[in-house]
Amino acid sequence: MKIAVVGSGALGLYYGAMLQRAGEDLHFLLRRDYEALRRDGLIVRSVHGDFHLPQIRGYRDSREIGPVDLVLVGLKTFANPVLVDLVRPLLGPRTAILTLQNGLGNEELLATAFGAERILGGVAFLCSNRGEPGEVLHLGEGRIRLGEFAAGLTPRAKELAERFCAAGIPCEAVADLLRCRWEKLVWNIPFNGLCALTGRDVTELLAHAGSRALVEKMMTEVVAAANRQGLRETIDGPAFIGQLLTMTGQMDHYRPSMMIDRQQQRPLELAAIYAEPLKRAAAVGAEMPQVAMLHALLDLGEEDFAG
Amino acid sequence: MKIAVVGSGALGLYYGAMLQRAGEDLHFLLRRDYEALRRDGLIVRSVHGDFHLPQIRGYRDSREIGPVDLVLVGLKTFANPVLVDLVRPLLGPRTAILTLQNGLGNEELLATAFGAERILGGVAFLCSNRGEPGEVLHLGEGRIRLGEFAAGLTPRAKELAERFCAAGIPCEAVADLLRCRWEKLVWNIPFNGLCALTGRDVTELLAHAGSRALVEKMMTEVVAAANRQGLRETIDGPAFIGQLLTMTGQMDHYRPSMMIDRQQQRPLELAAIYAEPLKRAAAVGAEMPQVAMLHALLDLGEEDFAG
Repeated sequence: MKIAVVGSGALGLYYGAMLQRAGEDLHFLLRRDYEALRRDGLIVRSVHGDFHLPQIRGYRDSREIGPVDLVLVGLKTFANPVLVDLVRPLLGPRTAILTLQNGLGNEELLATAFGAERILGGVAFLCSNRGEPGEVLHLGEGRIRLGEFAAGLTPRAKELAERFCAAGIPCEAVADLLRCRWEKLVWNIPFNGLCALTGRDVTELLAHAGSRALVEKMMTEVVAAANRQGLRETIDGPAFIGQLLTMTGQMDHYRPSMMIDRQQQRPLELAAIYAEPLKRAAAVGAEMPQVAMLHALLDLGEEDFAG
Repeated sequence: MKIAVVGSGALGLYYGAMLQRAGEDLHFLLRRDYEALRRDGLIVRSVHGDFHLPQIRGYRDSREIGPVDLVLVGLKTFANPVLVDLVRPLLGPRTAILTLQNGLGNEELLATAFGAERILGGVAFLCSNRGEPGEVLHLGEGRIRLGEFAAGLTPRAKELAERFCAAGIPCEAVADLLRCRWEKLVWNIPFNGLCALTGRDVTELLAHAGSRALVEKMMTEVVAAANRQGLRETIDGPAFIGQLLTMTGQMDHYRPSMMIDRQQQRPLELAAIYAEPLKRAAAVGAEMPQVAMLHALLDLGEEDFAG
């Protein structure tokens, strides 16, 4: 299967490398690591064992790649204004587009440009970081839940999930992508933002009674908003939140990507993870006041008053 | 009048200096600036003109001062656990104690130890910072509203206010100290905490739509809680908040004391400015959810996870 990776960061490089190792025909759209990857290939340093792909097909311009069977989108959502132009040259008549980006609104953006029937979305549970140029670090996890944007469970989604599984990526095709997206937000909204804002990791947040209570309160707000979005099956708040807290309690001083982005003074994915969910919550009368406050404080931090 | 200053920081040194210059008999309990003040006296660098007091009566131990007519308390509230012991040696049969500290709970602490009839409180509107050892910087404002802790408007409060006015400190005696304290909190609770948490000054907070809305929302929460505290006259929320925002809009990149404390890694006055007001609000069923969230985030920042 000819696959193009748009957004070859920690996520795009990791999944692309796994698929290429399994024999898929991968083409990476690159910026930062172009020289290193073309010259030396890609090293994956993984908790499951390191491996090296000596040859990477890397490009600076997606027009050099041409039409593919699948576009895998791993772009940070703050770069979405350029996404449509990056994807367009990759489309043939039957090309599918799978976005593994964070938050809400990514499928809609792609569907508006290219038609809803092309679009799939996936929620990735992956701890990975970029290392030196030409390296990606896989710290843990990696599973994906993917589904159609505009349909239930299709043969296409199932086949894609099987292909990922065959490449060593645990993957499940789901009927309700929207529910998966909101479930992920129940974790991302409190932990990404609070860690980025305060500079404390998830273990430190949970060790402090005040911020732990705040995490729970925000999770409760997000579940309430999610359950008004017309999901096929509602989320059982207390049980699900309990699971998330237990799971997070086992993470050893994990720093969410947004915390790292803030520490490295990169922009944050506020539109997809905060603004769009807040808008959809407000649209159904499910205000999320603590989430709104966190969003305001994070957005304030994005202002460059010195400029 | 023999006056002892307990807590000779930016506030205690400034007011003490003004009173000494007017001929009062001042005695300063000192720590950081002891050597410099004993040797060179005190320099006040003020927007109203600098002045120098060549001789300062400074002490390391309040037992050396002995009984006074008035104890002026300017101690940071996080040092309150030692306040009672610092004040006790200064008391004669008719000594009055005036606390100019921030927030709620200071009068109660002193009243429990020394009797409610001794206690007055004051709300100071003062922009001052410590300079080099032996210097205090007066950046603006300075007026005080003071009143009895356990009575209405008394001759004692009026006389004290007149004495301050005579020393060049605009001062008004009020019948309802509690109302003054809550009015001050309507400003302090949003601006002190948000500036400390985000590292943005008041001008930057007001320039950003999201944080400006948050300031207003928190002010509204505090006014609602204040108006259930049995004040003699309730606070007119919209009008008062409008005034505060206009006034703050005229401050040019002012950094509240709590922001400076956080930047210099000093402890914050969270008990007096957040925990106690939240407790009193909850006691009358006036939850302040945005204030509670801010308190939790500030308190998290006080944790020393490295320790």
